[in-house]
Amino acid sequence: MGKAKIGIIMGSQSDWATMRHAAETLDALGIAAETRIVSAHRTPKRMFDYAQNAKARGLQVIIAGAGGAAHLPGMTASLTELPVFGVPVESAALKGQDSLLSIVQMPAGIPVGTLAIGRAGAVNAALLAAAVLALNDKALAKRLAAWRERQSTAVAHEPTREG
Amino acid sequence: MGKAKIGIIMGSQSDWATMRHAAETLDALGIAAETRIVSAHRTPKRMFDYAQNAKARGLQVIIAGAGGAAHLPGMTASLTELPVFGVPVESAALKGQDSLLSIVQMPAGIPVGTLAIGRAGAVNAALLAAAVLALNDKALAKRLAAWRERQSTAVAHEPTREG
Amino acid sequence: MGKAKIGIIMGSQSDWATMRHAAETLDALGIAAETRIVSAHRTPKRMFDYAQNAKARGLQVIIAGAGGAAHLPGMTASLTELPVFGVPVESAALKGQDSLLSIVQMPAGIPVGTLAIGRAGAVNAALLAAAVLALNDKALAKRLAAWRERQSTAVAHEPTREG
Amino acid sequence: MGKAKIGIIMGSQSDWATMRHAAETLDALGIAAETRIVSAHRTPKRMFDYAQNAKARGLQVIIAGAGGAAHLPGMTASLTELPVFGVPVESAALKGQDSLLSIVQMPAGIPVGTLAIGRAGAVNAALLAAAVLALNDKALAKRLAAWRERQSTAVAHEPTREG
Amino acid sequence: MGKAKIGIIMGSQSDWATMRHAAETLDALGIAAETRIVSAHRTPKRMFDYAQNAKARGLQVIIAGAGGAAHLPGMTASLTELPVFGVPVESAALKGQDSLLSIVQMPAGIPVGTLAIGRAGAVNAALLAAAVLALNDKALAKRLAAWRERQSTAVAHEPTREG
Amino acid sequence: MGKAKIGIIMGSQSDWATMRHAAETLDALGIAAETRIVSAHRTPKRMFDYAQNAKARGLQVIIAGAGGAAHLPGMTASLTELPVFGVPVESAALKGQDSLLSIVQMPAGIPVGTLAIGRAGAVNAALLAAAVLALNDKALAKRLAAWRERQSTAVAHEPTREG
Amino acid sequence: MGKAKIGIIMGSQSDWATMRHAAETLDALGIAAETRIVSAHRTPKRMFDYAQNAKARGLQVIIAGAGGAAHLPGMTASLTELPVFGVPVESAALKGQDSLLSIVQMPAGIPVGTLAIGRAGAVNAALLAAAVLALNDKALAKRLAAWRERQSTAVAHEPTREG
Amino acid sequence: MGKAKIGIIMGSQSDWATMRHAAETLDALGIAAETRIVSAHRTPKRMFDYAQNAKARGLQVIIAGAGGAAHLPGMTASLTELPVFGVPVESAALKGQDSLLSIVQMPAGIPVGTLAIGRAGAVNAALLAAAVLALNDKALAKRLAAWRERQSTAVAHEPTREG
Repeated sequence: MGKAKIGIIMGSQSDWATMRHAAETLDALGIAAETRIVSAHRTPKRMFDYAQNAKARGLQVIIAGAGGAAHLPGMTASLTELPVFGVPVESAALKGQDSLLSIVQMPAGIPVGTLAIGRAGAVNAALLAAAVLALNDKALAKRLAAWRERQSTAVAHEPTREG
Repeated sequence: MGKAKIGIIMGSQSDWATMRHAAETLDALGIAAETRIVSAHRTPKRMFDYAQNAKARGLQVIIAGAGGAAHLPGMTASLTELPVFGVPVESAALKGQDSLLSIVQMPAGIPVGTLAIGRAGAVNAALLAAAVLALNDKALAKRLAAWRERQSTAVAHEPTREG
Repeated sequence: MGKAKIGIIMGSQSDWATMRHAAETLDALGIAAETRIVSAHRTPKRMFDYAQNAKARGLQVIIAGAGGAAHLPGMTASLTELPVFGVPVESAALKGQDSLLSIVQMPAGIPVGTLAIGRAGAVNAALLAAAVLALNDKALAKRLAAWRERQSTAVAHEPTREG
Repeated sequence: MGKAKIGIIMGSQSDWATMRHAAETLDALGIAAETRIVSAHRTPKRMFDYAQNAKARGLQVIIAGAGGAAHLPGMTASLTELPVFGVPVESAALKGQDSLLSIVQMPAGIPVGTLAIGRAGAVNAALLAAAVLALNDKALAKRLAAWRERQSTAVAHEPTREG
Repeated sequence: MGKAKIGIIMGSQSDWATMRHAAETLDALGIAAETRIVSAHRTPKRMFDYAQNAKARGLQVIIAGAGGAAHLPGMTASLTELPVFGVPVESAALKGQDSLLSIVQMPAGIPVGTLAIGRAGAVNAALLAAAVLALNDKALAKRLAAWRERQSTAVAHEPTREG
Repeated sequence: MGKAKIGIIMGSQSDWATMRHAAETLDALGIAAETRIVSAHRTPKRMFDYAQNAKARGLQVIIAGAGGAAHLPGMTASLTELPVFGVPVESAALKGQDSLLSIVQMPAGIPVGTLAIGRAGAVNAALLAAAVLALNDKALAKRLAAWRERQSTAVAHEPTREG
Repeated sequence: MGKAKIGIIMGSQSDWATMRHAAETLDALGIAAETRIVSAHRTPKRMFDYAQNAKARGLQVIIAGAGGAAHLPGMTASLTELPVFGVPVESAALKGQDSLLSIVQMPAGIPVGTLAIGRAGAVNAALLAAAVLALNDKALAKRLAAWRERQSTAVAHEPTREG
Repeated sequence: MGKAKIGIIMGSQSDWATMRHAAETLDALGIAAETRIVSAHRTPKRMFDYAQNAKARGLQVIIAGAGGAAHLPGMTASLTELPVFGVPVESAALKGQDSLLSIVQMPAGIPVGTLAIGRAGAVNAALLAAAVLALNDKALAKRLAAWRERQSTAVAHEPTREG
């Protein structure tokens, strides 16, 4: 798929179980993406370098997932002019409520477009990034529209009485 | 500034006190935007028409603000392929906690990039929309970078001991 | 039991595990009901059609269950004059707190009568719908009274010391 | 307007500031209603009498508002076969979160159709009661449809830039 | 142990898993107690009878456990002059937060002394009832003091490194 | 009224605005009480002395009010065999949610009978203490019954349409 | 008082209303401190420089206050080996619940010692920093002990009945 | 490692599963620590003795872990001049939200530096205590810096696609 247009970053390996759904969704849409572990807290310099070089390296959107006191999406957004979408990873004790508030409640000036807690948020971060790229990529726009169309038609009309 | 590229919609006149900050921020960045009242609950057909025609009318991003059981951002996202950013308006009793959860916790398939509750979220929705447009508009990219630069340099080094 | 008087709708197949309790309760009370999957987000047009035709098709009450950013009950209520009762389905991370607030916190003008999170809410939505129908159906009123009477007499006077 | 069809009850005089919106909405729709103070805790026998006689007295729906550990809606529902709609009154410290949970989280068997916290919930309880009565009252159905139509057309298309 | 001085009541058989700890604690302290299922919602008349006759039957304290929209403790307190202690049973979705608020947030005029959610609360309701009875029962006061003394001395000085 | 039977303690002068309602309620019931400032954190030794001597000094119940990380009720309970009732004082940021959880969630072994947040809780702590004393004081039992009777009859039957 | 041993940093001028209480408390204890505005989001490079040079410049403790998605304390802690204490500033909509969780829920590896929301937390951050310095400064230890002693003796024994 | 410089205390044996991570982290850093069970509620005198003698016995920092209505950290802080760090242990029903608020929301005057709920908090309490000791122990400062360096370099650059 060529050079990555989307960077998917996460705070630790354990976030991969959530963030893989972003990667798989982008893959299904034929969008080149890279996946990196970048910890705001344990590797702050790596985060600085990654965020500050992202635009020059050709990335167009960054998807950042983190849990607990989740600082990666917001700090990344403070260091790049690219759009940043944040995915709150479900945390052990507080079930992602801490992750969500740590990501979404950014002060005026530095935006993070925040998605739902967990897997749904990871899928949707990919779809939102795709919608952004599709603004200037007609082929992708068609693939995305087809993806949405398939999603709609896949909804059964009646529930199966086995669930 | 020419034809609107951003649609700012809100559920009622009372949301304007919040959403005006999105409009003013876009204005400061020289981005043409339109502002509309579109209530998911009181004017569902208007919402359908607005969302379904937005792309053909030349809009590129929709910013939707709503409070309480805030369905406008998510329903708009279900009806357009454009990126949708949601602003939770602070509600009377629950202070926007209901607005936030109603907007951000979208199921996999239909994304809403959600910003902070209230004024900060409205400003940031505009900045995020600007970042999206700037991906393909170098002049805007410069203006946005200058805006951020001014924001940084405007931060005093020491607090004024009067606050 | 003849033509359906109650429509039970839900956002996805996974909601059936909860909403089946509404269907089973109506069945036990001898009330004809239909069950449909209608996703506010993935099938918005289906939702519009369903809600706008419900009254003409002879339905008298709609029971709508959904989880997370649960927009189905409120949007349905905005599109029909029939009474709508909402069931917050327990969500993965937030345990239905998001579902509850997304359903119950409707703005003035469009009501959703909201029941408890999960199975209890589904049973009770059916009982509430039955109470509405019983206002003009004496035979049903008797069956409902008998159901309640059996419920009361089934309560043991002392706990079994095995629990 | 003749004999009351709706009983609006509340736990104390202080709840009137909220519950008056139910009374006024019913009045605007031409539905006869009575308003009573019935405290589950301070006048439990009055509550028993009220709930147990409501149906025989010709009431068809009960709207019950209460705050804090709000037991009035649920206890009323346990004592009558009529549909009961509950309005969580905003409480001092917890802003109605306690009221909401005390009303909505009823166990399977005894339903309370719960509306939003505060004024919006009071208005909507009236509208929901009207929708129930309208199932068998064509004149009321017309008035309710007209009320909703006026509500929709009253929504301005653009926000007034003064808010 | 003679005639019951404490009545332990609960809303359903499923609460016994929690409330048995109240019964066992009273038993260990040699205090006669009775255990009853009294549902505020499914058996409101039984609740009325139980609460109104409790004092005349010789009970001195009532311990009431319930979950969700837990009305049993507060309603019992409104119907008896005896001290009532409430135990919030852990609920499925909200983990007892609804139970706790429904019990503790009583309005001025009708008190319920509320204990912790779940097993700890059930044990402590028994200990608190014992402390009340011990005010006028020196033998019990001694047994209670001994129980507390044993509890203190049973606390190891260092954690076992196996946990 | 003679020697104090109830000790009302609070963490600071600022708690008096809440706790005065306990004092005034006891006064209205003719129960002798003393009021003291005893801070668990700023005067831990005073707290130890107060709690350990309370029983010998003739107190029968302790009412303890505190806010935030409210340790006074629980620590007092750990140091006396008397019944302790706790009043969560409304805190500035979290509105008493911290106070409530800090008081009510005691571990098995040391009970605190917890009342509602704020004024209602203070009134009710006094009423609960009165109910405990009334178990062995017939004159007080009569006064308390009369107080409750007056409370019931003071509830108007219809709301005044001015609120 | 010589060279600053404590750095008090905050995200914006508006945090000064809270953080001044840290400055004033250190001042009262005779501890030299500096106060700086360092925004994690608007001035990330300033934050990096400040945190990375803090130790070499002779600081021994950093007190960081921030609100909303409060990243300053945690990011500072990731960039210095000095102890960092965090003060959650009360935010507009969520009253500091977001600030608290964003600061305290740090992942294993990078600690922030977190204090209470608002003014109390700012005072206590200063006292905790003083306790740390006092481990190796006997004169300060004496001043701190005297401060605590005065605090204890300043607690009146009875509430003034005017509050 | 010689005489203990850090005291790790906890309310019960069941807290060891959490607090062992503090002990193991200190051990890995070569810092001598002691571990004790000290219950604020079941052994208040032991707590008094421990806290009041801690400084004289040569301890420099106390780490206190507790759950539910967690009073141990705050009460210990009120009884010693040493820095106290608190670890909220995850509780059964409320997942540590009660523990967190009971520890962190201390009133002005008595600080507890609070860490995250559960294991992460225990590890970080140890690291924070180490940072405090390292201010005056260059060898420890080196070990701590090395520990942090290893932590950073251990972070893989890309997620393993197996998670």
